[in-house]
Amino acid sequence: MAGGEAQSVRRIAERDLHTFTTHLLVRVGLREEDATATADVLVASDVRGIASHGMARLAYYVLSLENGGIDPRATPEIVRESATTAVLDARHGMGHPAGIRAMTLAIEKAAAHDLGTVTVRHSNHYGIAGYYAMMALERDMIGISMTNTHPGVAPTGGRSRVYGTNPIAIAIPTAGPLPFVLDMATSAVPYGRLEVASRRGTSLAEGWALDADGRPTTNTDAALIGMLLPLGGAVITSGYKGYGLALAIELLSAVLPGSLYGPLVHPMADGSSPSDLGQFFMAINVAAFDDPTSFKERAADLLRLVKDSPRADIDTEILVAGEKEQRATETARQLGVPIEEPVAVVLEELAARYGIGSPFTGAWATVPIAPAREAGE
Amino acid sequence: MAGGEAQSVRRIAERDLHTFTTHLLVRVGLREEDATATADVLVASDVRGIASHGMARLAYYVLSLENGGIDPRATPEIVRESATTAVLDARHGMGHPAGIRAMTLAIEKAAAHDLGTVTVRHSNHYGIAGYYAMMALERDMIGISMTNTHPGVAPTGGRSRVYGTNPIAIAIPTAGPLPFVLDMATSAVPYGRLEVASRRGTSLAEGWALDADGRPTTNTDAALIGMLLPLGGAVITSGYKGYGLALAIELLSAVLPGSLYGPLVHPMADGSSPSDLGQFFMAINVAAFDDPTSFKERAADLLRLVKDSPRADIDTEILVAGEKEQRATETARQLGVPIEEPVAVVLEELAARYGIGSPFTGAWATVPIAPAREAGE
Repeated sequence: MAGGEAQSVRRIAERDLHTFTTHLLVRVGLREEDATATADVLVASDVRGIASHGMARLAYYVLSLENGGIDPRATPEIVRESATTAVLDARHGMGHPAGIRAMTLAIEKAAAHDLGTVTVRHSNHYGIAGYYAMMALERDMIGISMTNTHPGVAPTGGRSRVYGTNPIAIAIPTAGPLPFVLDMATSAVPYGRLEVASRRGTSLAEGWALDADGRPTTNTDAALIGMLLPLGGAVITSGYKGYGLALAIELLSAVLPGSLYGPLVHPMADGSSPSDLGQFFMAINVAAFDDPTSFKERAADLLRLVKDSPRADIDTEILVAGEKEQRATETARQLGVPIEEPVAVVLEELAARYGIGSPFTGAWATVPIAPAREAGE
Repeated sequence: MAGGEAQSVRRIAERDLHTFTTHLLVRVGLREEDATATADVLVASDVRGIASHGMARLAYYVLSLENGGIDPRATPEIVRESATTAVLDARHGMGHPAGIRAMTLAIEKAAAHDLGTVTVRHSNHYGIAGYYAMMALERDMIGISMTNTHPGVAPTGGRSRVYGTNPIAIAIPTAGPLPFVLDMATSAVPYGRLEVASRRGTSLAEGWALDADGRPTTNTDAALIGMLLPLGGAVITSGYKGYGLALAIELLSAVLPGSLYGPLVHPMADGSSPSDLGQFFMAINVAAFDDPTSFKERAADLLRLVKDSPRADIDTEILVAGEKEQRATETARQLGVPIEEPVAVVLEELAARYGIGSPFTGAWATVPIAPAREAGE
């Protein structure tokens, strides 16, 4: 849920951005198929307006690939499997290709047996959770995806970072103009929101963060060296619910497959230690429960009823999950994908370091080292 | 998450409360097996300290059974089934026996095929979501349960009741002294919290509710004729996440099985209209992913790491989901199940109306019309 920040952006065609990203990752050491899969997810993030999880993270991935935290040539392996389930060992490689393979497998299992669940161990950051959940949509399936992340959030009643922003995504097909795509961190806000406040010099809302001593704070600097609060904020506003959801996600996505969990996960640093994160993917075949056309019509009807209900503010539309990102996608495809200026500068630095041209020169349209798949739509 | 309210309670032995409830429901027209199943869930709620969902609702169930909203003799029927999935039609009977049957079926399917999901259509209130999720624990499975409810919550940006408090429960077995049992409404607070504030004459916290015009309010009376906010509260504190979760639950538990959904669900009134709610149950076999003993040890380790992390307030323990309810259970089994005085009076009125003795006389220990199962533990 990024976007809305008034700052200078450069726009670039989705295909060019995808080609650049793939090319760069191949130079850093990835196999082309893994570079392509990673670019699919990263570009989809920027296309959907989730600027924090796309190109903004490319430098961190490159650092981790350079410093050994991520193995560029890892080959994920299925270490346990049944008709409906599997455990995939990502072997400390990139999280994105492992995630795509795991979700693809979950969907295949659901196609054959109505339900499929695949967990991933020894993995890394996998970008936006929503990408994987959305893979189920074109098969008329419901997709669910979740991951643990580096510690950054306090439990209710605590004053240290014991678990991460642990996102969950749920994608549900509808007959309407847009699917339902919930893709949310279980912290009150993501770290990016603190960084935005820091750049702008504004203070935070109550319920977002604690200072390093565990006291509620609206001071941005104090929060940045402190920790985030779970969704719901303080106890009085039911922060224990966000905390409970986050721990459920930690148990399903990290403890179940056998990855590091909670405070045992290393903090994000110089990219030299494997993150050893875990993920959980599920596909549910709608056809097992009802005729998909009928289900999708009712789903669209529910969303329409909610959207058409009375507005608190006549000028402010009621949105449903995924709608904002759908609009960002339409804009990105018309005008180009927006890259915030500081990120654009980093991309040019990476390009220079690896001896490939700037992605913003327009030259990329003529250098298709790999065909750009339609990313996550 | 009830409890903590200082008010007069009467204590009653769990077994007596179960026998009374079963007996009453048989008098109202339920088959003994359905009455027993319903008593299992309702008593477990009071035992776990969730006073809002146990005996406090008995009068509403009786009213609905008397007025035709719930069919006391309904026989649920499986209307669609595969190896891993089923759809159960509750035929407008009690939600509790239908829920137990559906979750039992999901567990059987998971025992055979590692995953099982059963949805229920044309159902009613099913009590605490956690009861069903916890049924999976003794089989070393992960249980998930969710339901839609009567409209009472505004969507982000809206000013009308378009969906309910839509709870979700996730139960995960551990090797430690307690399982992980998250059981939460996706609204900021439940209605019961407004009623408590009303009785006490206190005001509400910000982020709980809107008045009838959709304006944020901390006035209890205004909120009671207004509506609840989703978990997260206002937009600034990410209320759209709670709203998104609630809609996902509405889609999975009501739209998927083919029940009424969103604002189409009738408001709770005189119990003469079928509620036509829906539920979603899932069981995940841990053994498909890892040796259950090993998984449960890691799960217990995560919970211990979180609980032993530094406290914000040295005198206030860090709890994990289900711990408060576990303690309430221990107390209830030592001292008796606490029934708040106004609810106790209602139980005596119901007993008198149906010509059975007061549950508080102690006579029940000698009237075992049905054996009391261990409820939900």
